[in-house]
Amino acid sequence: MTSFDALARVRASFDRQGLMTHLGARLGTVAPGLVHILLPARPEVTQQNGYFHAGATSAIADSAGGYAAYTLFPEDTSVLTVEFTMNLLAPALGDHLEAVGTVLKPGRTLTVTRLDVYAVDGDQRTMVAAGQQTLIQVAARPER
Amino acid sequence: MTSFDALARVRASFDRQGLMTHLGARLGTVAPGLVHILLPARPEVTQQNGYFHAGATSAIADSAGGYAAYTLFPEDTSVLTVEFTMNLLAPALGDHLEAVGTVLKPGRTLTVTRLDVYAVDGDQRTMVAAGQQTLIQVAARPER
Amino acid sequence: MTSFDALARVRASFDRQGLMTHLGARLGTVAPGLVHILLPARPEVTQQNGYFHAGATSAIADSAGGYAAYTLFPEDTSVLTVEFTMNLLAPALGDHLEAVGTVLKPGRTLTVTRLDVYAVDGDQRTMVAAGQQTLIQVAARPER
Amino acid sequence: MTSFDALARVRASFDRQGLMTHLGARLGTVAPGLVHILLPARPEVTQQNGYFHAGATSAIADSAGGYAAYTLFPEDTSVLTVEFTMNLLAPALGDHLEAVGTVLKPGRTLTVTRLDVYAVDGDQRTMVAAGQQTLIQVAARPER
Repeated sequence: MTSFDALARVRASFDRQGLMTHLGARLGTVAPGLVHILLPARPEVTQQNGYFHAGATSAIADSAGGYAAYTLFPEDTSVLTVEFTMNLLAPALGDHLEAVGTVLKPGRTLTVTRLDVYAVDGDQRTMVAAGQQTLIQVAARPER
Repeated sequence: MTSFDALARVRASFDRQGLMTHLGARLGTVAPGLVHILLPARPEVTQQNGYFHAGATSAIADSAGGYAAYTLFPEDTSVLTVEFTMNLLAPALGDHLEAVGTVLKPGRTLTVTRLDVYAVDGDQRTMVAAGQQTLIQVAARPER
Repeated sequence: MTSFDALARVRASFDRQGLMTHLGARLGTVAPGLVHILLPARPEVTQQNGYFHAGATSAIADSAGGYAAYTLFPEDTSVLTVEFTMNLLAPALGDHLEAVGTVLKPGRTLTVTRLDVYAVDGDQRTMVAAGQQTLIQVAARPER
Repeated sequence: MTSFDALARVRASFDRQGLMTHLGARLGTVAPGLVHILLPARPEVTQQNGYFHAGATSAIADSAGGYAAYTLFPEDTSVLTVEFTMNLLAPALGDHLEAVGTVLKPGRTLTVTRLDVYAVDGDQRTMVAAGQQTLIQVAARPER
């Protein structure tokens, strides 16, 4: 699969993730083994102190890592998350979050990614979360 | 703090979590060291195959564990997530998800919880995710 | 496979784990989906303060979970650890550690376990670590 | 504290870790926020297939991350592991393992590290495990 195909496939699948749309997340860079997802600040993604909710941070990190793996998968396959872990390094405040998913170890069955999340505030960029994730490649499932 | 106070405090804080309201999550059982959160199925919380998104699953699990810890914290304190890990055991499909946060080890600085998430479909209840979480008790921060 | 076979198979494999022998670990209960491993206190398994080293705690927990999964695997298969996470709940001191691996979700490819570790001191038993683990079932590999 | 002091302090503490000595592990690079630990291959650190045991891999990774944090701690403090997670990326075979602990986020109470483990075989170096870890700074405890 060319990276052009992978890009189109990731964009099509991202648009079918009801949660990403509902949170207001947008797909950024998509390259082989690398996907960025942006999440603008809005009250709908906060916890009780007004920071980005760890669940919102994790949601875009999980999607970024899953799609980073998916760019390397053959056609007629789907991707599911097996597990992930997130360390919240600092309260997440800013104009938007940027989650970066990077494939650390590709594989036929399992792929491992690294998940980095930054809070961007004007021209400041602070790492607010770091994680790792395992994905499994399965036979294609209908997307809706 | 009596458990009545803890209940009121958790409910007030939960209502200020913009993300929980936006996802349509509801607070269930609140008892010392134990909190349930429910998430009804809707297109706004899905991934590309129509399952509950791992990010939605994690968001309610993170809040359930955080509030389970918070029920045991003294007044004038706040709770922040240090880290959590989630194993996704099965595709999450059903009428709603139910996240159960249980304090495994309380502490003055750090509290560790167990996070169990079930998919409820009619009278069937299937465990779809299991996790662990570390929370830190900090001086009270303004809630909004 | 009967549980008797599983028991024999686990014992044979455990005896080939050079690390378990070297640490002085002993196999305890072996039942379908459940394995205990004991580690007596000795200077060779400590960290700098004289507590059990988190690496020793993790080593017996990893083996307990791996063998718990293995009891449910068909013949002509082997087990490898995909990932695990450990929360150290309290400094580990006592006569011995007892790691309990329990299968949470069996599967043809992946199995998820829970890992609980207790420090036993006379008639006191304190939970000192809790974890989760993913194992993969692979074609049998030569054991030595 | 100068980095010279940190180096001496880490070496002194490492020598008191009974487990590291017992496994045959050796301290490599020690710099502010960065520690390497080497583990030569020997039957005493294997699992049933003759690979390095995930518990041995984790033990040196845990110590490397803990000491990386410790290089940044003030005098009269000790370091304890709060939690760590390890993804085993490939079967670990080779002349020796090299665990690299790097501080990702220092803090007065909690420090987060990244843990990378490589298998070195002749002039080949393969990443075999990747993890993350949380450490807590506590008042100095007697070392023995």
